Amino acid sequence: MVLLEFSMYPTDKGESVSDYVKRSLAIIDDSGLPYKLGPMGTCLEGDIDEVLAVMKQCFARMSEDSNRIACVMKFDYRRAKGGRLEAKVETLKQKTGRDLRT
Amino acid sequence: MVLLEFSMYPTDKGESVSDYVKRSLAIIDDSGLPYKLGPMGTCLEGDIDEVLAVMKQCFARMSEDSNRIACVMKFDYRRAKGGRLEAKVETLKQKTGRDLRT
Amino acid sequence: MVLLEFSMYPTDKGESVSDYVKRSLAIIDDSGLPYKLGPMGTCLEGDIDEVLAVMKQCFARMSEDSNRIACVMKFDYRRAKGGRLEAKVETLKQKTGRDLRT
Amino acid sequence: MVLLEFSMYPTDKGESVSDYVKRSLAIIDDSGLPYKLGPMGTCLEGDIDEVLAVMKQCFARMSEDSNRIACVMKFDYRRAKGGRLEAKVETLKQKTGRDLRT
Repeated sequence: MVLLEFSMYPTDKGESVSDYVKRSLAIIDDSGLPYKLGPMGTCLEGDIDEVLAVMKQCFARMSEDSNRIACVMKFDYRRAKGGRLEAKVETLKQKTGRDLRT
Repeated sequence: MVLLEFSMYPTDKGESVSDYVKRSLAIIDDSGLPYKLGPMGTCLEGDIDEVLAVMKQCFARMSEDSNRIACVMKFDYRRAKGGRLEAKVETLKQKTGRDLRT
Repeated sequence: MVLLEFSMYPTDKGESVSDYVKRSLAIIDDSGLPYKLGPMGTCLEGDIDEVLAVMKQCFARMSEDSNRIACVMKFDYRRAKGGRLEAKVETLKQKTGRDLRT
Repeated sequence: MVLLEFSMYPTDKGESVSDYVKRSLAIIDDSGLPYKLGPMGTCLEGDIDEVLAVMKQCFARMSEDSNRIACVMKFDYRRAKGGRLEAKVETLKQKTGRDLRT
């Protein structure tokens, strides 16, 4: 299982891009995969093919009407570990003994 | 104001690194800057010098006992816009008309 | 066409990982896609499916004997533009009028 | 010593941004730090303060006339190791026994 975080946006549409990014969020929300939207990207959990398939759907939609698109992704693979979308943050809360802001 | 997301971890300490990452979270939590911890990194809001200063404190602490450290950062600068740690996510919830998971 | 840059390494193998990364480079070199190896990652050019297929082959090989793997990718899509592995750097050399180091 | 790779561009200036990025390259080239320009970013070598100082100069210049700027950075710290701008690539060439394209 991997956690894949990605942010993707057109760079030819001016300063505000939320009208384009919102379509990706609808695709992600419909995908059925566990995810978390954050201020700088969205994190999906699944096997590598599942998470990349969702990212590619977002790209296919965005490239219909954008001439230039930037995307940053990072993934963290850990053998045989699922449920990490919540677990990584919980571990850090426990280990710091703090109610960290999430 | 910028949003800076970063993840930083030692790569010479084996598979589990939360004992090292937790020290960064304590530094971030003590910094006084608005932040959000997510599954793949932490997002800080402030001016460029403020957010980089916190990242560098985390690095200074981690390099005390790690020989190799990887860090990925991305920042999003938008002139004269603050409060985006919450606002970017809210905009996407409104524009999709969905209760997106965060 | 996209330019995809990625770096991928095991994080459970200690400080030096070139014995693992070298296998990815052999896969990339055999892929037939145009690429450039740099100090912080490798850049491939092709359509989105081609470049991700090579990345996934590298991941499949690395996950055979690594329990935890980190990967950072970024891609730059520009409609109908190929040959950018060289062209982007050339443009900057011309526009600065400098023999920039590459 | 760290290797810092970064790419920084305005996202409010339309599809082509090389007229903005070229100013960063002039700053980098004038910095005196060892660097390598690649198709998806520039890699600098130095201590953490040196490399971030150059990145911040680029940001200061770009934010003079851009309202929104995206930047992706990654760094690789390895204790007591310099000369890695060349050495990492050379190691991979030797270990694969191939004349990898750079």
